[in-house]
Amino acid sequence: MRHVIDEPALKVLFLGGVGEIGKNMTALQYGDEIIIVDCGDTFPGGDMPGVDLVIPDYTYLLLNKDKVKGVVLTHGHEDHIGALPYFLKDLNVPVYGTKLTLALVDAKLREQKVEGNLNVIKNKSVVSLGENFKVEFVKVSHSIAGSCALCITTPIGVVFHTGDFKVDYTPIDGNMIDLRRISEIGQKGVLLLLAESTNIERAGSSMSESRVGESLNHIFAENTDRRIFIATFASNIHRLQQILDLAKKYKRKVAFAGRSMINIVEYAGNIGELKLDKNNIIDVEQIDKVEDRNLCIITTGSQGEPMSALSRIASDEFTKVNIGFNDTVIISASPIPGNEKMVYGVINNLYRHGARVIYESLAEVHASGHACQDEIKLIHSLIKPKFFIPVHGERRHLQKHAELAVKMGVPSTNIVITEVGNVAEISKSSIRLGDNVHSGCLLVDGLGVGDVGSVVLRDRKHLAEEGMIVCAVGVNSLSGEVFGVDITSRGFMYAKDEAEMLVDEAKQVIYNSLGNIDLKGVADWTSVKNLIRKELKNLFYKRTRRNPMVIPVIMEN
Amino acid sequence: MRHVIDEPALKVLFLGGVGEIGKNMTALQYGDEIIIVDCGDTFPGGDMPGVDLVIPDYTYLLLNKDKVKGVVLTHGHEDHIGALPYFLKDLNVPVYGTKLTLALVDAKLREQKVEGNLNVIKNKSVVSLGENFKVEFVKVSHSIAGSCALCITTPIGVVFHTGDFKVDYTPIDGNMIDLRRISEIGQKGVLLLLAESTNIERAGSSMSESRVGESLNHIFAENTDRRIFIATFASNIHRLQQILDLAKKYKRKVAFAGRSMINIVEYAGNIGELKLDKNNIIDVEQIDKVEDRNLCIITTGSQGEPMSALSRIASDEFTKVNIGFNDTVIISASPIPGNEKMVYGVINNLYRHGARVIYESLAEVHASGHACQDEIKLIHSLIKPKFFIPVHGERRHLQKHAELAVKMGVPSTNIVITEVGNVAEISKSSIRLGDNVHSGCLLVDGLGVGDVGSVVLRDRKHLAEEGMIVCAVGVNSLSGEVFGVDITSRGFMYAKDEAEMLVDEAKQVIYNSLGNIDLKGVADWTSVKNLIRKELKNLFYKRTRRNPMVIPVIMEN
Repeated sequence: MRHVIDEPALKVLFLGGVGEIGKNMTALQYGDEIIIVDCGDTFPGGDMPGVDLVIPDYTYLLLNKDKVKGVVLTHGHEDHIGALPYFLKDLNVPVYGTKLTLALVDAKLREQKVEGNLNVIKNKSVVSLGENFKVEFVKVSHSIAGSCALCITTPIGVVFHTGDFKVDYTPIDGNMIDLRRISEIGQKGVLLLLAESTNIERAGSSMSESRVGESLNHIFAENTDRRIFIATFASNIHRLQQILDLAKKYKRKVAFAGRSMINIVEYAGNIGELKLDKNNIIDVEQIDKVEDRNLCIITTGSQGEPMSALSRIASDEFTKVNIGFNDTVIISASPIPGNEKMVYGVINNLYRHGARVIYESLAEVHASGHACQDEIKLIHSLIKPKFFIPVHGERRHLQKHAELAVKMGVPSTNIVITEVGNVAEISKSSIRLGDNVHSGCLLVDGLGVGDVGSVVLRDRKHLAEEGMIVCAVGVNSLSGEVFGVDITSRGFMYAKDEAEMLVDEAKQVIYNSLGNIDLKGVADWTSVKNLIRKELKNLFYKRTRRNPMVIPVIMEN
Repeated sequence: MRHVIDEPALKVLFLGGVGEIGKNMTALQYGDEIIIVDCGDTFPGGDMPGVDLVIPDYTYLLLNKDKVKGVVLTHGHEDHIGALPYFLKDLNVPVYGTKLTLALVDAKLREQKVEGNLNVIKNKSVVSLGENFKVEFVKVSHSIAGSCALCITTPIGVVFHTGDFKVDYTPIDGNMIDLRRISEIGQKGVLLLLAESTNIERAGSSMSESRVGESLNHIFAENTDRRIFIATFASNIHRLQQILDLAKKYKRKVAFAGRSMINIVEYAGNIGELKLDKNNIIDVEQIDKVEDRNLCIITTGSQGEPMSALSRIASDEFTKVNIGFNDTVIISASPIPGNEKMVYGVINNLYRHGARVIYESLAEVHASGHACQDEIKLIHSLIKPKFFIPVHGERRHLQKHAELAVKMGVPSTNIVITEVGNVAEISKSSIRLGDNVHSGCLLVDGLGVGDVGSVVLRDRKHLAEEGMIVCAVGVNSLSGEVFGVDITSRGFMYAKDEAEMLVDEAKQVIYNSLGNIDLKGVADWTSVKNLIRKELKNLFYKRTRRNPMVIPVIMEN
């Protein structure tokens, strides 16, 4: 009798994340060791009202606590580091990343009073995690400084993970994506490539960050007499650096508006990632003392977020700043899908105040941080992996990236497309989907992590769309007599007279239907509550064609 | 003493509509006569949960019933006719429009059992409304057949209203936008131009509808062995005609999926706007009897609407159709801003089933129905109005259209930008904003029109984001003794043990705080309810950092 001995397999686990696969958290497992790539959060969708944050459900990692050797971070964006304060509370393993990435993590952990074992690495430095993993951080371009791809050496071969990247030949810090090293890694042989897919639908190449600087320079030159506002992502340090340099060139003082902007400027300034001339910076409280022509205000709110500085400025809620006819506002960002309405709402309000607004993609005031098709092809042609898994994208992006990989020479049998909870098993000679692990989303609402689930969300949706009716019934427990019916509604209807008539009718319906049954000595009120619910649902639907949530309450005396 | 006698003025009233000014409903008033241009609805935004429709608040017209002479319709899209069943119930004036427009209105009115006085006009025919208005319907191109601009002659001059339009030199019905007539009208002199602004941010010209047919032809030719699905707007009769013709050419039977698609095909077929070969059409129930290569399914859901046929097909809820590896799905539409996530959700699901999906704008499977900059410039150059009001757009669009008009020669003092409720007053020699009239939105929810207002929406938002707690307190009215406290929550938290502990703690808090006050003979329970609300709000915030809506109920025995 012969036993078939499986080749030893490397597992890649896709944990958590909404919509975009492998973005927030990915784990690599070999034998009894696990390493984690990134640990980020996502913004809740419109179907998750009241939820503050969505983090990956990392149950699998908690069940395998002893195996986890550490977390390696590709860069410092929220969707790659935002879940760390929660995760490290549960499992305090070492964290590795570049200087800026860890400065942002550190601020986060301090805010939530979590201790972390943070280890700053430099590019090209190699970190050993356990017996089986060696991770090299490789410099890439992206919309935040200190971004890296990861070259992970495992016992069965090399895994190259691009992280979020683009190819910028004229980066702001002069420090280009390390194409030579990537080429070297490819030459030595890569077993598996994981590459991001965000811009896979865009032909050509992404715009260089320095092109944004040129556009902004034109705008500064054409608006010499006007006050200039620029809204951008706080974490885009290179964008901030360009704006600071332009402000200096055009003799404008800079003020920052918005909490995250002020914070990140401080962290990045402290570690030298952002070169700040303190003499050129003023507090936003002081801007009225400076002439319009000498002022540049850098603000949060490029996504139209309702509580951001720019939104509040546009709707007159930010008392320190009045927007008006002499203001030019530059939205140096593209709306993230789903944010369009909010962004345009802010722009409309700015126009209503008479401001000049510059925001079109044609104005080239923003560059994407993600590789387009030609840049992705470049990486494929340098790495030439044996196996390929497209990551960081919705299903449609992964599909298209897989099609591109086939065109670049990867056999389609050497590619898998994954979903959250999938596990890809890779040996030296094969790739396949293995058994899934439990994963998905944990919702963070206030202090609670995971206590808001699908039932709560379903109820919230119902309450939001139809409102609710509380029907309290007082029952004398000795006689079984109904001594009172009280009906209260919220979010249901407003027209006063009609609502009052309907409430009176509803009370009568309840008195009538409860009058027909014997309530003496009832121990389990479930069927009575169901009756109340049914009667009121029918009545309200008939009268209004609406289905408010009906909540029966029985008070026994 | 000298009296200044004002010149007689024409008023243009911008009534209702969310976001886009002058789209859903505009009224023209001269002396004691009012005519109405269009009477449409809008979809509720994400901030209006549970609302079915938003219609203009036409209070002003009801207050001036006797003056209203009729409604003229530019075309049959929902945002131009959808409010008619509600409006005509309140004010049954004659309605004028082209054949297809009124066929769609008629279906709507029958559905809601409203009688209408509908008058079909032909292009170039002139309708007199009252003493002061003569309305000529002028053929334009748009994404629905039977679209018109309006040339309205008033005692002080001609008003030209473009309606929704584009310039299509190769339209499907061979019936081009009547540029000669528009030129003639311009030559005779136009006092006021109202022109749409939807695509004012797009340079160049919109694509011809016939170009879409060419792209679809390529796709049919390249997918001969596969089943073809095409999702598009039901009302785009010319698109449907092209698909029907292609299906015939490629020997495919056509099935329609989705209620609005089936309905509109019927109405348009009945009046001859759509040329249907009945032998070539099969019921969607019959599709399994036809081979994939001989089938083309035209479906609703191009905007990813959750209840639409395509959405349900993609998520396996549409039992008549199973999507799979041999299917090619064409999304022949662009996502309307705000619908991106839904559309991409459907596309992702289609990919998950193995289907091929064609949707990029690059694939040229959709053409906008709205004029881009060069087409708008053409109209300006033909009409050369004295006064100009940009319409059909958000503030940012109107602003840019006004800038374009200045470049085309209209003095900026001859242009006004309006908001909902504004009234533009035009004399032979001046234009200005007069006093506003009451306007805005009426929300339709089920049978109720206007009974869901800002208070109800605020409550719904609160319920959705934080959930709610009902605290029922039973009080013996003779002794003032509390005989029971019941706490029920919905949409608040799920984790069972913690929730139960919190409920027990909350009950104790209420017993304690009510124990301190005398409840005997209380007539007005407001202050007691406020106390309950305050105590529970504090407790829940402290324990969870959430703010559920607290609803106190007092039951007296």
